[in-house]
Amino acid sequence: MEKSTSVRLLLGYFLFVHASAISAQTLADRLGYPPGTKLIIVHADDLGETHAVNAAAIKSLEAGSINSASMMVPCPWFPEIADYAKSHPDADFGLHLTLTSERVYYRWGPVAAADTVPSLLDQNRYFHHDWEQNPHINPKEVEIELRAQIERALAMGVHPTHLDSHQYRLIVNGKEIFDAMVRVAHAYKLPVFVTRDWFAEHPYLEKSLGSDDIVLDHTVTIGPEVPPEKWAEFYISALKNLQPGVTEFVIHPGFDDEELRAATRERSTWGAAWRQRDFDFFTSDQFRQILAQENVKLITWRELVKMSTRK
Amino acid sequence: MEKSTSVRLLLGYFLFVHASAISAQTLADRLGYPPGTKLIIVHADDLGETHAVNAAAIKSLEAGSINSASMMVPCPWFPEIADYAKSHPDADFGLHLTLTSERVYYRWGPVAAADTVPSLLDQNRYFHHDWEQNPHINPKEVEIELRAQIERALAMGVHPTHLDSHQYRLIVNGKEIFDAMVRVAHAYKLPVFVTRDWFAEHPYLEKSLGSDDIVLDHTVTIGPEVPPEKWAEFYISALKNLQPGVTEFVIHPGFDDEELRAATRERSTWGAAWRQRDFDFFTSDQFRQILAQENVKLITWRELVKMSTRK
Repeated sequence: MEKSTSVRLLLGYFLFVHASAISAQTLADRLGYPPGTKLIIVHADDLGETHAVNAAAIKSLEAGSINSASMMVPCPWFPEIADYAKSHPDADFGLHLTLTSERVYYRWGPVAAADTVPSLLDQNRYFHHDWEQNPHINPKEVEIELRAQIERALAMGVHPTHLDSHQYRLIVNGKEIFDAMVRVAHAYKLPVFVTRDWFAEHPYLEKSLGSDDIVLDHTVTIGPEVPPEKWAEFYISALKNLQPGVTEFVIHPGFDDEELRAATRERSTWGAAWRQRDFDFFTSDQFRQILAQENVKLITWRELVKMSTRK
Repeated sequence: MEKSTSVRLLLGYFLFVHASAISAQTLADRLGYPPGTKLIIVHADDLGETHAVNAAAIKSLEAGSINSASMMVPCPWFPEIADYAKSHPDADFGLHLTLTSERVYYRWGPVAAADTVPSLLDQNRYFHHDWEQNPHINPKEVEIELRAQIERALAMGVHPTHLDSHQYRLIVNGKEIFDAMVRVAHAYKLPVFVTRDWFAEHPYLEKSLGSDDIVLDHTVTIGPEVPPEKWAEFYISALKNLQPGVTEFVIHPGFDDEELRAATRERSTWGAAWRQRDFDFFTSDQFRQILAQENVKLITWRELVKMSTRK
């Protein structure tokens, strides 16, 4: 089983009881919610990557099972989800800034001109498969490509509510790369998905952000250490043990069909069956019941931005 | 129903009895076949475009129903079919040189750096949807992009047997653009798919080719004027009325599944059901029986090149 650096680093965050976070003032507190309020963003990643992911995300959004999502602009199915976003202007869509093409049989490259971002590309002009073997990522080129992705989205009628980073590449690869993301976010006046839980391991995150930046409190995401039969149990436990504040559930819904099976067939992690399990849990009655039972409220990036601007 | 210029121009070639061709010496004659020999290449187009097209092509190739195919290098599923081609070095794979991205919800762009081929791209850096509204295609940029596509294929272990043109763009858009294709073909010592039947309408085709270039005699391809229920009838009639010489059947097998339906949903022409009909006919017993009954022989580009080099 492949485990990238980012996955290894993030495994620590799967723990939903995070001692250092308990005492701090949460984003929810600062936004004026009563103490102890538990808010979650149920966020689907990787829209645009395949049709099976778009179709599952649209179905979950329309069922109200997820309330936020982000799109991969360089991917071939971006036009499909961009068209949907354009015709659903109230939906909470961000951009899932993408600088890797991590699959083997199905690949994509940059939005910027290839000769302006050489450090991001392999010899065939796709994005690198991963960054572990390619440490020489030029932060200036990161910025060029991020701006190109945002410009394409805007030109295609998408008005994103937030920015996040595919495979956490922009978060875990040092201050210079994170700063490029922050510069772009500030230029377009968009919040970046960062949680306070990450500051201990990556102190530059806190240093690079300004006092006006939105910082979430926690994140929950499932990892390869959870066996398929424990999927629902993991999420139920996370919801029952939720800490006060704003927690983003980073999930990966998709349909386990021919396309997604073929696109992800070289490994099972974040594969077609994995994504079908996420779709199944978050569209289940069980999920809705636990939200009600645990008094968990839903919130979107759009609402967070509105509230923090008003404050 | 959309009909592009190339489609309109090519509708004339659907006639399988072509008076002007009958008297000429056929390629088969020149290669030393007995007079009157009927040879066909059963050629699947658009490999690499979607997984459903790759899967159908691989199944047809392995069943022996088709014997040749060509791949779209800029498309996201190219790595899947390139990997197959690399591990099946005797299969007859060419490159389906691609300078348009004709779908709406699923799109791709150039292999060359975007800023080196601006005339080929729309404002979002995808290839133009079509060329009817974009007459200013720079032939120098065509050559840059064609070379980039061939170089990527070679770098990924594909050794193409021939070159052809997606949507016949490089054939029907004037001498300068066809010359760019021929220059690249000659540089890489690869034959180009051209038939003698096209010379009357596009005299520059004949003028631009040298005496060593392989020129097929005829082509058969189905068009939007054939209703779905007449699909088999069209192909059977074409096979029963086949002229002597080498005829390429340009077909578009694919599986009518979620992916292909979504990718082609804005129009039915060359859509998912269309491609399933092609797959169904060419993998049928009926097709094999007619080949035997009409004494039609199969030939590949690989064999043509070998025979014409030996001559």
